Amino acid sequence: MEEKAQIQEAIKAQGEVVRLLKSEKASKDQIDEEVAKLLQLKARLGGDEGKHQYVLKTAKGTRDYNPKQMAIREKVFNTIISSFKRHGAETIDTPVFELKETLTGKYGEDSKLIYDLKDQGGELLSLRYDLTVPFARYLAMNKITNIKRYHIAKVYRRDNPAMTRGRYREFYQCDFDIAGQYDAMIPDAECLKIVYEILSQLDLGDFCIKVNDRRILDGMFAVCGVPDDKFRTICSTVDKLDKVPWEEVKKEMVNEKGLSEDAADQIGEYVSMRGGMDLAERLLQDQKMSQSKQACAGLSDIKLLFSYMHLFQITDKVVFDLSLARGLDYYTGVIYEAVLTQAGVAAVSSETQNGAAGEESVSVGSVAGGGRYDGLVGMFDPKGRKVPCVGVSIGIERIFSIMEQKAEASAEKIRTTEVQIMVASAQKNLLEERLRLVTELWNAGIKAEVMYKKNPKLLSQLQHCEESGIPLVAILGEQELKDQVVKLRVVATREELDIPRADLISEIRKRTSAA
Amino acid sequence: MEEKAQIQEAIKAQGEVVRLLKSEKASKDQIDEEVAKLLQLKARLGGDEGKHQYVLKTAKGTRDYNPKQMAIREKVFNTIISSFKRHGAETIDTPVFELKETLTGKYGEDSKLIYDLKDQGGELLSLRYDLTVPFARYLAMNKITNIKRYHIAKVYRRDNPAMTRGRYREFYQCDFDIAGQYDAMIPDAECLKIVYEILSQLDLGDFCIKVNDRRILDGMFAVCGVPDDKFRTICSTVDKLDKVPWEEVKKEMVNEKGLSEDAADQIGEYVSMRGGMDLAERLLQDQKMSQSKQACAGLSDIKLLFSYMHLFQITDKVVFDLSLARGLDYYTGVIYEAVLTQAGVAAVSSETQNGAAGEESVSVGSVAGGGRYDGLVGMFDPKGRKVPCVGVSIGIERIFSIMEQKAEASAEKIRTTEVQIMVASAQKNLLEERLRLVTELWNAGIKAEVMYKKNPKLLSQLQHCEESGIPLVAILGEQELKDQVVKLRVVATREELDIPRADLISEIRKRTSAA
Repeated sequence: MEEKAQIQEAIKAQGEVVRLLKSEKASKDQIDEEVAKLLQLKARLGGDEGKHQYVLKTAKGTRDYNPKQMAIREKVFNTIISSFKRHGAETIDTPVFELKETLTGKYGEDSKLIYDLKDQGGELLSLRYDLTVPFARYLAMNKITNIKRYHIAKVYRRDNPAMTRGRYREFYQCDFDIAGQYDAMIPDAECLKIVYEILSQLDLGDFCIKVNDRRILDGMFAVCGVPDDKFRTICSTVDKLDKVPWEEVKKEMVNEKGLSEDAADQIGEYVSMRGGMDLAERLLQDQKMSQSKQACAGLSDIKLLFSYMHLFQITDKVVFDLSLARGLDYYTGVIYEAVLTQAGVAAVSSETQNGAAGEESVSVGSVAGGGRYDGLVGMFDPKGRKVPCVGVSIGIERIFSIMEQKAEASAEKIRTTEVQIMVASAQKNLLEERLRLVTELWNAGIKAEVMYKKNPKLLSQLQHCEESGIPLVAILGEQELKDQVVKLRVVATREELDIPRADLISEIRKRTSAA
Repeated sequence: MEEKAQIQEAIKAQGEVVRLLKSEKASKDQIDEEVAKLLQLKARLGGDEGKHQYVLKTAKGTRDYNPKQMAIREKVFNTIISSFKRHGAETIDTPVFELKETLTGKYGEDSKLIYDLKDQGGELLSLRYDLTVPFARYLAMNKITNIKRYHIAKVYRRDNPAMTRGRYREFYQCDFDIAGQYDAMIPDAECLKIVYEILSQLDLGDFCIKVNDRRILDGMFAVCGVPDDKFRTICSTVDKLDKVPWEEVKKEMVNEKGLSEDAADQIGEYVSMRGGMDLAERLLQDQKMSQSKQACAGLSDIKLLFSYMHLFQITDKVVFDLSLARGLDYYTGVIYEAVLTQAGVAAVSSETQNGAAGEESVSVGSVAGGGRYDGLVGMFDPKGRKVPCVGVSIGIERIFSIMEQKAEASAEKIRTTEVQIMVASAQKNLLEERLRLVTELWNAGIKAEVMYKKNPKLLSQLQHCEESGIPLVAILGEQELKDQVVKLRVVATREELDIPRADLISEIRKRTSAA
């Protein structure tokens, strides 16, 4: 009884929270979440309100995709996969869970975000956190030293979800990687060509691809007087430059990370530099920078990369940016990141302000990123044999969000089916004739529908076409059957014309050949 | 020390097991599993053999798909999805995990096979066990009363894996369902039309679709004198008739389930009946059967179903089979199952002998199954509102196995990429020219590759084409560059001809238009 009273108290308080959020016009996601809590509390009160006390929701941070979202998703995937295939990539798939130890020691602090499975006897398992570690495990396990593959699949992170801003606990990754020992910068440049193609074809507005090299960053830190053991932590501070002004970044370096003011200022000078191949050439002549062998190796490769990118005709969107650092530890060479530069889009992705972890949040408007990681496969090989790799991950969830917003804003209706024609009748008792005709169409490969009613009204058949964007209707009536014709109606123009039954299939094909 | 000695002992014993299996030429899966155990034991011995002590394997009962398997998978999916789309289906997606309570009480005894996630704070979650329960949850949650949707995704069962025979713990389901209140048997017949189309187009050999109705089974049990509370358990016994002779089934009914010998014999007479619409008509006149209202309702619907299937032109493969029972509890009307009838294929699926649980294992050679379930959505609706549903699940893993075997047996090589042309050079120092040309091709939408080497040998470039089935090679040399032509080589015939550079793209399109 005591407990019941407590729950009733909690329900009252939670009801207040929901009312408040509604009056403040809070986001739908936020309200839904609080309503779900309210329903859960009510469910705990038990049987009073009937037998159905399920809390009808998906797990926190996850969502269903409805048919409209799936149609957008399919379109985006098709564009991306076409590009991957144009560049000769194969595809693989790996299980959604891995042995827990496979993921151990790969993600540093972010390991706390890994979903573990319950120990139900047997192996200890975790849901995959990204597609890169399973890829490296796959290469080592199968002793593969050469592959160009893409992998599109869901990954899982027990992160703080921000669903209105496109951050979920279950989300797609869309990776393209080239593994193998090749001549420098050729595969790296192809990855950037692919990013360029995909972002151009998705028509998301103007974009910019930043490139840098981990060796340049490390060399720069060295010549600026950063102690060796502070490279990684200073690197993460530099990584914040796309969201935070230099003054604050400097403050963190000096006050929190204990760097000398002088070293910070020297770094500050370098990380403000942006340019192209010319900048790489200038820095190779730079008195300080040229003292670092590492930096010189990186700068020479940047020069080479630009020469290949020039041949690939993509340099108009690429900038060599010394402030690009990227979060992940495993990069060993070139790194890059693509950013949307149109104002309207940047706002969508302002989530990155609140310190989200992981590679999805490296920059406002970041929609792709990657780099070279030559050491990861060796971590899995029993003899530590390395397989050099370079790859790119397309930030597909952010792209979905943008495409969904664009679709909502546009007048154009998104179709969720590809049906070309509806087989309808204006009179009663023609179900058999409708089924006979729709069978003819299906057997000829035409996408066709028929209403599952014996005697549907013509109006409701036409309405269904309007709603789902079906362009044509084949109308059957006693007269048409006698004349061996079909009345073909064009939904958009309401034009109607009699087509001989024998010509119907070719007529449909002709009129819907674009679809 | 004690423990170390024990492990060394265990390693010795396990090594013996592996040697034995190898000498007996056991299956690769079986040997791999025992080798993995051996490696795990060795890993427990620790650091002696170096720092890399990972057990390189996927989780038990799961597998990676390599590029060849993915190519087959893609082909099968395309055939299936085309059929779903031809019939006007939309698609949805749901998260890989659900609230644990969403799955509770839906699978009876098989609930023990559900994978739970570890409680890491927050909600209790489980991996989905099938796609039907998430579909019903989705309909109820979004108050959807009409939809025709397909869903292709992986599901999870902690079952005893039998990987050589295509039974995994992670596997695809491939579902098509029609939800909504419609006139009887029209959507049901369309589901069967889809099964017919898919199995014909996949070219798996001859098949047969069995149909029955839960109401006929229940009515038959009633008129044969089975007590009401034994309907379900007798039904599961009948379900074994596709693997076990009648005598054994009868024994189980009488000895284990306590049915009278007379009742069992009456059932035995009915379940041996197979036919078409004529059988349904005869049974409607059957003195005993016609006493059951339920059975009559089912029999009338079977008649109606056959009349629609006749219009859909699929009756040549359909048989009304009173022994078809199907495992799942939630069916309320028509049930069906497609079986491959060619001997060579039936052997692949003999796994079903060892009492596997769930709908995948209902029959030797079963490759699709489904039925009507009018009550499931109501279990999720707060007010118990029902949404009638009928659907079919394609047994995709079994189809993959068959297609893989067919591919291995055939001489035809499976391509894992779609590359149309390789840009090659016979002389040194032509990397830039190769990159320039491949860019032209990519920009024109041609699928093209170039080797990531500055000076690759012509032979190794041609070998790569042979190995990966690339049909054309564009060979550049000093002479060709001067003449503004490209030497186009047809890999299959070794024919070579000079094509003016300006005509190259159209020439490639012409020669690879089938691809």
